[in-house]
Amino acid sequence: MKKIITCLLSMAIAGNLMAQDVKPVVANLNKVKLEFKLDPEGKPVYAVYFDGKPVITNAALGFELVNDSAFSKHLELSNVEKADFDESWKPVWGEVSTIRNHYQQLTVHLRQKETPKRLINIVFRVFEDGVGFRYEFPKQPGLKYFVVAKELTQFNLTGDHKAFWIPGDYDTNEYQYTTSKLSQVDGWAVSEKATDIAVRVVPDQHAVATPLMLKSDNGLYINIHEAALVNYPAMQLHVNTHNFQLSASLVPDALGNKAYLHAPFNTPWRTIIVSDQAAAILNSKMILNLNEPSVIKNTEWIKPMKFVGVWWEMQTGKSTWSFANSLDTADAAGNLIANGTHGANTENVKRYIDFAAKNGIEGVLVEGWNTGWEDWFGNWKENIFDFTTPYPDFDVKGIAEYAKAKGVKMIMHNETSGSATTYERYLDTAFRYMNKYGYPAVKTGYVGKIIPRGEHHDGQWMVNHYERVAQKAADHQVMIDSHESNRPTGLHRTYPNWLASEAGRGNEYNAFSMGSAPDHETILPFTRLMGGPMDYTPGIFKLKGYAAGASDRQVHTTLAKQLALYVTLYSPLQMAADLPENYEAHLDAFQFIKEVPADWDDTKVIEAEPGDYITIARKAKGSANWFIGSITDENARTAKIPLSFLDKGKKYAVKVYSDAADADWEKNPEAYVIKEYKATSATVLKINIAKGGGAAITIQPLNNLRNVFH
Amino acid sequence: MKKIITCLLSMAIAGNLMAQDVKPVVANLNKVKLEFKLDPEGKPVYAVYFDGKPVITNAALGFELVNDSAFSKHLELSNVEKADFDESWKPVWGEVSTIRNHYQQLTVHLRQKETPKRLINIVFRVFEDGVGFRYEFPKQPGLKYFVVAKELTQFNLTGDHKAFWIPGDYDTNEYQYTTSKLSQVDGWAVSEKATDIAVRVVPDQHAVATPLMLKSDNGLYINIHEAALVNYPAMQLHVNTHNFQLSASLVPDALGNKAYLHAPFNTPWRTIIVSDQAAAILNSKMILNLNEPSVIKNTEWIKPMKFVGVWWEMQTGKSTWSFANSLDTADAAGNLIANGTHGANTENVKRYIDFAAKNGIEGVLVEGWNTGWEDWFGNWKENIFDFTTPYPDFDVKGIAEYAKAKGVKMIMHNETSGSATTYERYLDTAFRYMNKYGYPAVKTGYVGKIIPRGEHHDGQWMVNHYERVAQKAADHQVMIDSHESNRPTGLHRTYPNWLASEAGRGNEYNAFSMGSAPDHETILPFTRLMGGPMDYTPGIFKLKGYAAGASDRQVHTTLAKQLALYVTLYSPLQMAADLPENYEAHLDAFQFIKEVPADWDDTKVIEAEPGDYITIARKAKGSANWFIGSITDENARTAKIPLSFLDKGKKYAVKVYSDAADADWEKNPEAYVIKEYKATSATVLKINIAKGGGAAITIQPLNNLRNVFH
Repeated sequence: MKKIITCLLSMAIAGNLMAQDVKPVVANLNKVKLEFKLDPEGKPVYAVYFDGKPVITNAALGFELVNDSAFSKHLELSNVEKADFDESWKPVWGEVSTIRNHYQQLTVHLRQKETPKRLINIVFRVFEDGVGFRYEFPKQPGLKYFVVAKELTQFNLTGDHKAFWIPGDYDTNEYQYTTSKLSQVDGWAVSEKATDIAVRVVPDQHAVATPLMLKSDNGLYINIHEAALVNYPAMQLHVNTHNFQLSASLVPDALGNKAYLHAPFNTPWRTIIVSDQAAAILNSKMILNLNEPSVIKNTEWIKPMKFVGVWWEMQTGKSTWSFANSLDTADAAGNLIANGTHGANTENVKRYIDFAAKNGIEGVLVEGWNTGWEDWFGNWKENIFDFTTPYPDFDVKGIAEYAKAKGVKMIMHNETSGSATTYERYLDTAFRYMNKYGYPAVKTGYVGKIIPRGEHHDGQWMVNHYERVAQKAADHQVMIDSHESNRPTGLHRTYPNWLASEAGRGNEYNAFSMGSAPDHETILPFTRLMGGPMDYTPGIFKLKGYAAGASDRQVHTTLAKQLALYVTLYSPLQMAADLPENYEAHLDAFQFIKEVPADWDDTKVIEAEPGDYITIARKAKGSANWFIGSITDENARTAKIPLSFLDKGKKYAVKVYSDAADADWEKNPEAYVIKEYKATSATVLKINIAKGGGAAITIQPLNNLRNVFH
Repeated sequence: MKKIITCLLSMAIAGNLMAQDVKPVVANLNKVKLEFKLDPEGKPVYAVYFDGKPVITNAALGFELVNDSAFSKHLELSNVEKADFDESWKPVWGEVSTIRNHYQQLTVHLRQKETPKRLINIVFRVFEDGVGFRYEFPKQPGLKYFVVAKELTQFNLTGDHKAFWIPGDYDTNEYQYTTSKLSQVDGWAVSEKATDIAVRVVPDQHAVATPLMLKSDNGLYINIHEAALVNYPAMQLHVNTHNFQLSASLVPDALGNKAYLHAPFNTPWRTIIVSDQAAAILNSKMILNLNEPSVIKNTEWIKPMKFVGVWWEMQTGKSTWSFANSLDTADAAGNLIANGTHGANTENVKRYIDFAAKNGIEGVLVEGWNTGWEDWFGNWKENIFDFTTPYPDFDVKGIAEYAKAKGVKMIMHNETSGSATTYERYLDTAFRYMNKYGYPAVKTGYVGKIIPRGEHHDGQWMVNHYERVAQKAADHQVMIDSHESNRPTGLHRTYPNWLASEAGRGNEYNAFSMGSAPDHETILPFTRLMGGPMDYTPGIFKLKGYAAGASDRQVHTTLAKQLALYVTLYSPLQMAADLPENYEAHLDAFQFIKEVPADWDDTKVIEAEPGDYITIARKAKGSANWFIGSITDENARTAKIPLSFLDKGKKYAVKVYSDAADADWEKNPEAYVIKEYKATSATVLKINIAKGGGAAITIQPLNNLRNVFH
C-alpha cells in the first residue's frame, strides 16, 4: 500500500504569501492541521492544531549560520509542494509487526531575497498523531560548507501546561523527572540536588531535555522530540517561563558552534505528537516512521534477547569491577595484587552462564572483565581501557567455549570512561576481538566527561561517534546496547543492530543511590522511551537489604511491579538484573521473566496517564500468547483490563502475578500472589495494585498450553 | 665511560636559602654556571652565566595549576642533590657516530610551606654548552591528577638581542624567519602578511616559537628551545619587548587548559644553549642528550635513505593530487570523471621507480595515490581519507611488485587534512596496509585546522597523537616522516623510526608561493633543526620557469646551493625533490646527490653565522669519504675551508661543485662549475660563492677511489 499524490501549487499562490495578510499554506490529516507562512519580515513561522485547538502558535523556523546571521530573514517562497503518503513496513523487531506510515507532506521552498540568494526547504509531514518537520539545505552555489550558530525553531505553546521534564543537560539524561507547570521549570535547582549523577552540565536554567511530555489544561497530551538525529547535535528546549514559548537549543561543541554541515543536508525531524488520549502518545510510530529504513541488508543475525549479568552485584557493592584495589601497589613480580572481590572471575561468570542456560535466558553480560578498573573514573584521561586485555582471573577463551557449549550468548562490555577518542583508536581491534570469541552483542558505556575535551555526550561529534560505533558493529554483525549515549530518536529503524540504549535513569539508581520515585516508570514511556528502547534493567526481586553499607536503601517498587516492567518498558534487550540467588528464592515469580519475550507482534495500550499509571498488553512474536503489564505510581489503584483484544470465541488461560493484599512498595514490597484463571475476550480483569505496585499477566490459548511455555 | 658522583647538601644549607640575602645554589661545567634560589616570597628563580657573562637573570620558575593558582608561591627547599654525569652513547643514525653526554646535575626539592604541602622538584643539568632543566612532580598524596593553567618559566635576557624568530603560532612553524631586535618582535605583522600559510593562529602579538636563536651585543649566541616534548603542549615564548624578559607560553587545548597531568610526571626539558661561537650552537647535542634512549629494541630495520617522489610535479602545478576535478560530477556508471592530470598513475610512478633504481636512490614517495583529494582541504571535516583506497589508476599491488623487483622502497603517504580523529580511527588498518604492500616508511601530513575541533597542531593532545603514530609505526616497523606536525625536540633519540619532520618552511614554498629569502637556509640549522632533522626537500635543479601559471616564480638559490643543502641541512631522509627530467638535464651535478649519504660518522662545523653563512663537513657512515656543504645568504662570499680534519699524511681527491663565476641566485641560478683537485689535511680550499649560492664538495682518499663512488 503506497500512494503518493503530488500537487504543485502555482507560483502565483506562492507569491501571494509575501503579503502580510495572506492565508497560510496548510496541510492536514484527520484532526491534525499544520499552517505555514512567512511573516511580514520574510521569516518563516508555523502553527499546529489538534481537533481545532491550537497546539503550537506563531512559532519561528530557520537558522543563524556562523557566516550568515541573517540567513532566515527576508526569505521568499519560491515553490510549494504537497503530497499524500501511505505505506506499511515491517520492523526487524519491535512492539508491533507492521507499522503504517501515513502522512500528508508539505514542502516549502524558500530563498533569500538578496544575494547570495541561499536556499532552504522546510518539509512538514502531518500524521494523524502529530507533525514532524525538518530543514533541507539543497545543493546550491551559495552554500556548500557551513556552520550552524543557532537553530531558531520554536514550539510556542498556548498555556502553562503541566510538564514532565528533566534539565537540559549537555552530558546526561539520568535525572528523575519533575512534574510541574512550565512556569516552574528550573533546571539548576534540579541539577544542584542530583548529586547521584557524576557529570552535570546545565548552562541554561530554563532548558529542558526532549522528549518533553506536556498536558494542557484543555486535555491535550503533547510530546516534543526529534527523529533521525544524524550528524547534528541533540536538541534541547529553552522554556520561556512567562509566555511558554519553547526554543530549540542545540548542544554546542568545544568552541560553541552547533553543527558543521555540508549541503545537501537534511536536519533531524522535529516532532510534535499530539492527542486528547494519553495512550495515543504511547502508540505513536511517528518517530520511527520519520527515520530512514535499515542500512543493514542482512538482518538475520539480529535477535532480541533477555540476559543476566555480572553487574548488579557490583552496583550493590557485593563485588567489584576492579581486580585490585589500586594501581599503585604490586606484588614482588610487579603484578597487581588481587583484592579478592573481583566479580568477573571465571568461576562466578560460569555460575551466571549455568543459571542462564538452566532458565532459558539467552545472554550473559560481564562487566569488569578487562583491565583498567582500578583507576578509571573521574580524571578525564585517555587510554584507560584497551578493550582486549582481560584480567588474569577472567579466562576469555575458556568462558567463550563454556558459554557456547551451554548455548548461551556472551555480551561484551566496552566502557570508554567517556574517552571516545580512545574507543575509536581501538574500535577495529575491539570488534575483531568480539568476533574472535563469539560475542554477538556489546554494551558500550560513556561514564564521565567526554574526550575530545570540550565535546559533550549530546553534541554533533558524539552523535556521529555513536553512529560510527553502530555502523562498525553492523560491519562485524554485533548488536549494540549503548549506555550514557544520547537519548534515542528512532535510529534503531536505520540501525536495527542498535537494540537499546540506557540514556536515561535506569533501575541502577536504586542500587547505588537513593533511587527513583515510584512514579518514575509511569513517566519513562512518555519521555525517554519515545525515541527508542531503554536498557532499564528491571527484575529486581530483593527489594531491601541488598546494598552493602546502605541498609536503608530500597527499590521504590513492589516485586510484582518489577515483573510488569518487562511489558510496560519495551525493549528488545531485557535484563533480568538481580542475582541468581535472589531469583532462586522466588522461582514461581521468576517464571514470568522466563516466559516474557523481548519481541512482539502487537501492542495495545489499555490505559495510561503520565506520572500515574500504565497498562499495556502485548502479543508475543509469532505466537498467540499475550502478556500484560500494569503499573501505578505511589498511589494504589484497581486496574480494569478488558481482554477484548483476544480472539473472539477462544478460551484462554490467564496467570496473574500481582501485589499481595498487604503489599506496599515501602513497607512490604516483596509480597506477591500468583493466581490462575480462565478467560475470553469478554473478560474484564480487575486487579488491585498496591502503592508503588504492579501486575504482570500471561495469557495463552487453552489448546496451546504445552507448546508455548517452557 | 660513565661516572656519577652524588653529594647531598645538608638541610642546614638548604634552610639558609630561605633568607633573602642567601647565596644561591650553584652548578657549573666549564664556562657555564647555573644559580638557583628561592626569592623572599618563596618563589623559585634561576640565572645562567657563560664565561662570567650573564645570559639569563632572575628568571621565575614554577606553575599555576587550575586548582592551585598559588602552587609556586611560598615554597621551601627541602633538599638539594648534586651529581656529575659523563657517558657516551651511539645513536641509531645521526650526524656523528658517538655522542658524549656530560653534565653536572642539580636537583632542588621544593615543598609548599602550607597544606597540602605539595611537592615539586626542579632538575638542572649544566652542560659545557648550556643548561637544561625540567620540573618533576613526584608521586605524593596532595597531588595526583592535575591540570596546568600556566607554566611560569622565564628566560630573562640581559639586553635587546638580535633575534631570529617566527611568530608563536599554535598551528604552524612554516613562516619565514624575521631577523630583528627583540624589541621589534611583532608576530601579528608577520602573520598578516604570510598569506601563503593557510591556517595561522597567533593570539599573542609578542609570542615567538622556539627554537629561538639570539645573538647578544657582547658576542653570545643563545638558543632557547625544549627537549623531550612528551605528553605536554609545545612551549612558545612571550617576549616583553621593553625589558626582554621571555616567558613560557604553552599552547592551550580547546578549553584553554594547558596540560592534563598525573603525578609522577616530568615535564619536557627547557634548554638554553649558549656559546661565544656560532658553530658551537650547531654542534650542540644537549637536546638529544636530554631525551630518553630508544624505546625500540630492535632498530635493524631503521635505515636512513634518499628518495624521489611524485610530488614536485604537483607542487608546481604540472599534475594534480586528485584523480577528478570534482566530487560532484560522475560518469554514467557513477564513477569519478578522470581529469587526465592525475600524477600518481601507475605509469608515471613506474617512471620514478625506474629513475630511482637507475641512480641508486633508495626510495620513491607517491602522493595523491588514494581517494579523497577532490575535496580535501579547508573545510574542517572528518573522514576525507581512509588511507587504504587507491585511485583506480594506481595499481597498488602491481607497483609494490615492480618496486620490489627493482630494489626500490616505496614510501606511503598519509595526509590527514588535519583530522587526527580520522587518522586514529584508521591507524591500525593503515599500518597493516603498509605492511601488506611492503612500504617501509610513511610520510604523514596534517594540513588544515585540527580535529578534534579546538585542538591545535602544537597542543598536548596532538603532541600525544604524533607520539602514538610513531609508536604504532614502530610496532609495524615503519619509519615516519611527519609533515605539519609539531617542531622536533630530539624525540628521534627515543623513537629512532621517526626519522624526520617538516614542521618548518620547506623548499615547497618556492613551488607554490613566492618562496623564501636567500638567507632562509642559513637560519634553519640554528632554529628549526635544533630539535631534529627536517624533510626540507632540497635538490631543485630547474630554478626558474617550473611553476605552471607563475612564470616569474623562482627558487631563491643557485643550483650549487641546492647541492650544498644535502650537507648543511642534516636529515636521515633526504629527498631529491626535482623531476627526473630536470636531473637528466644535469647528470654531472646530479652525481653529487647520487653520492651524498644520509647518515654520518662525524661532523665538523667549519664556519657559521646565523642568517649569513654555514659551512659544514661530514664524514660518511662507515667510510673514509667526506662531504662538505657551504652556503651563503644574499651576499656573495669566499668560503675558506681548511681540510685539517682529514687524516694527516694521506692524499685525497676533491671534487667541487660550485657556482660559476657569473652565477647569481636571481639572474643566473643554474650556472655551476665542477672541478677536481688533489688535497691533504694541510689544504685550505677557497671557494667563491655567488649571491644566494653555495658549494658542494666530495673528498675521498686517493687509494680508495673505485670502491666507494658508484
